[in-house]
Amino acid sequence: MENVSSLFLEKAKSIKLLLTDVDGVMTDGTLSFFTDESGTAREIKHFESLDGMGLMFLSHCGIATGIVSRGQSNTLEFWAKVLGMHFLFYNTPAKHLVLPYLEKNFNIAPQEIAFIGDDVIDLGLLSRVGLPLTVANSVPEAKELALYVSPRNGGNAAVRDIAEQILKARGLWEKILQENKSGTFKQPVRDLHIVKGL
Amino acid sequence: MENVSSLFLEKAKSIKLLLTDVDGVMTDGTLSFFTDESGTAREIKHFESLDGMGLMFLSHCGIATGIVSRGQSNTLEFWAKVLGMHFLFYNTPAKHLVLPYLEKNFNIAPQEIAFIGDDVIDLGLLSRVGLPLTVANSVPEAKELALYVSPRNGGNAAVRDIAEQILKARGLWEKILQENKSGTFKQPVRDLHIVKGL
Amino acid sequence: MENVSSLFLEKAKSIKLLLTDVDGVMTDGTLSFFTDESGTAREIKHFESLDGMGLMFLSHCGIATGIVSRGQSNTLEFWAKVLGMHFLFYNTPAKHLVLPYLEKNFNIAPQEIAFIGDDVIDLGLLSRVGLPLTVANSVPEAKELALYVSPRNGGNAAVRDIAEQILKARGLWEKILQENKSGTFKQPVRDLHIVKGL
Amino acid sequence: MENVSSLFLEKAKSIKLLLTDVDGVMTDGTLSFFTDESGTAREIKHFESLDGMGLMFLSHCGIATGIVSRGQSNTLEFWAKVLGMHFLFYNTPAKHLVLPYLEKNFNIAPQEIAFIGDDVIDLGLLSRVGLPLTVANSVPEAKELALYVSPRNGGNAAVRDIAEQILKARGLWEKILQENKSGTFKQPVRDLHIVKGL
Repeated sequence: MENVSSLFLEKAKSIKLLLTDVDGVMTDGTLSFFTDESGTAREIKHFESLDGMGLMFLSHCGIATGIVSRGQSNTLEFWAKVLGMHFLFYNTPAKHLVLPYLEKNFNIAPQEIAFIGDDVIDLGLLSRVGLPLTVANSVPEAKELALYVSPRNGGNAAVRDIAEQILKARGLWEKILQENKSGTFKQPVRDLHIVKGL
Repeated sequence: MENVSSLFLEKAKSIKLLLTDVDGVMTDGTLSFFTDESGTAREIKHFESLDGMGLMFLSHCGIATGIVSRGQSNTLEFWAKVLGMHFLFYNTPAKHLVLPYLEKNFNIAPQEIAFIGDDVIDLGLLSRVGLPLTVANSVPEAKELALYVSPRNGGNAAVRDIAEQILKARGLWEKILQENKSGTFKQPVRDLHIVKGL
Repeated sequence: MENVSSLFLEKAKSIKLLLTDVDGVMTDGTLSFFTDESGTAREIKHFESLDGMGLMFLSHCGIATGIVSRGQSNTLEFWAKVLGMHFLFYNTPAKHLVLPYLEKNFNIAPQEIAFIGDDVIDLGLLSRVGLPLTVANSVPEAKELALYVSPRNGGNAAVRDIAEQILKARGLWEKILQENKSGTFKQPVRDLHIVKGL
Repeated sequence: MENVSSLFLEKAKSIKLLLTDVDGVMTDGTLSFFTDESGTAREIKHFESLDGMGLMFLSHCGIATGIVSRGQSNTLEFWAKVLGMHFLFYNTPAKHLVLPYLEKNFNIAPQEIAFIGDDVIDLGLLSRVGLPLTVANSVPEAKELALYVSPRNGGNAAVRDIAEQILKARGLWEKILQENKSGTFKQPVRDLHIVKGL
């Protein structure tokens, strides 16, 4: 864990929720579209298997996970459910507005939240959470705020790397390894809390 | 801004419109197709999130944006609308023909136009605009004409880099950062002007 | 064959079956989804031509091949049939459970099985087969178990590399080259044995 | 043209037809599939814009182009028509069988044919044409036969590179540049000759 600071380790021990941006963090930023037979544009989202497992591991260990997205996508809802995530914030251009919402409704304080963002639209939330995080190919303004910059690019398992670093900081990684070796690891299943247009 | 020449800075201050090619500039050049149940070939276009934000930033700051494409695509129209672009030129194999059209109908002179192109089909327009631009992996003939070659490849945020360089040259980047940090940045919405078959 | 150990050569001579994980091994780990007109999420799987030929070569030479997947996918079934594979294990989170099944029903012992896995969910099966294998970009825990680490990443022809190393270890590669040069190589066709939810 | 041998230059001057493999040459080898609402597996083919222009340039200059594919694909037929190609050979596992067919029906001798192949299934045809060609990431057996190895990978504009090298060898590249600069270049349109199952 040579890339992880003592400040990251300290913060990682106290967070209750890992939030993440989608495009450029859970994906490499590619936005693919085709027009179907009815003339409707349909988006294809490109996620990452290692990231998905990392988010499931966090959730399985009691650390909540959530998505904060500027846009909307049925596909995002599908994927968040597969991963057993807790929160999906849609149509949220002013991303820091999730903080008062989470504090009021779920009693989660900003200092208990980690957030992974890569572009300037993420700066407002990155500057207000307890554990701001980013990816190797983010904008320099995000790197200036982050307490940990994953050595991996968005869409190339950066979210998995971050999930592992959090689990290792809390001494939970060995448990994940053991449950996977023995075949007892179970994919988390729960209701997804969806909020549109904060 | 060590890669930007004084000539680029001067030209960037006076342009009213940034035009761009699609394949190889807004994408990495990949052309994906599948055949649907009715036997029709459908194209999937692969755009880039960072590029899209960059084009929205320009438009938001009063610098018009437009696409000049050899082919046709409903998906391109969808995407240009999402980004709040001003112009979409379809079926335009002789791309320099957009110049007299823009001058006559919109009073935008060639010297007030920037254009990003990557292949030989773009040379006619690149050689006639005030600010010719290209990407890191363009053909050498495009690089010879360009006043700025983005260090990034097409589809890997080259358009975003160019948008940022133009905004920085005009002293507008700090405004974009501040609006994003405060959550007041609004996605531009306008009518898209579509021209087919010049 | 400078990357191959004498232990790999010995084991490769005695295996009857090559099993493989899908995401991150037969693919680069990308999971692409779109939502169709009926609102259903559909996955796009991205396989590799060189891998496909490698699996067909093994099967053609009498070495059985199979897939062990945590999830389910009609597309996986389609592709396994195209390649003339023998086994497809679906919905198998505890992957090592395929071993007693194969021994009881097909008389294939764990020591006669090779398995390619890349993530922690594969560790249980990797630690129980005769010939554990992995890819260049796997998790370190998989590399510790593997008797051969392909120098290629998952989705970048790692499976082909492994298929070639096995065929070369058994002296069968020259036969494959000759049949391809003369045009007599025939794609293997057989019934696919499908097992869901071990 | 430092990578091109005098033998390549000599051969390039006399060829009448450039044939090419698809997967791994016109693409990076990725084979993408999804299952549609009717349960049918549909393939997505990923081509390259620069390659497409290169094939159109050849055809425009009177050098015929064609595809030799082991499999079948409606999408391939669509793309070959867009590019104004002359020949499409489907379901052709023994690829060298196109040679007697082309000589008998179109009076094109093997010595007048170039072929780009990347895998062992291409060795039979590569060893029988006048100008065997391959890509940077092909199998070593293909490189041994090739008179020119493009420095680019399949799907990363290797076909375009080869098309340019042939046009430059024949003194036709300047004409292509001039027609593109002036906007007089026209996309070639012709009937596609399709042969299935030689």
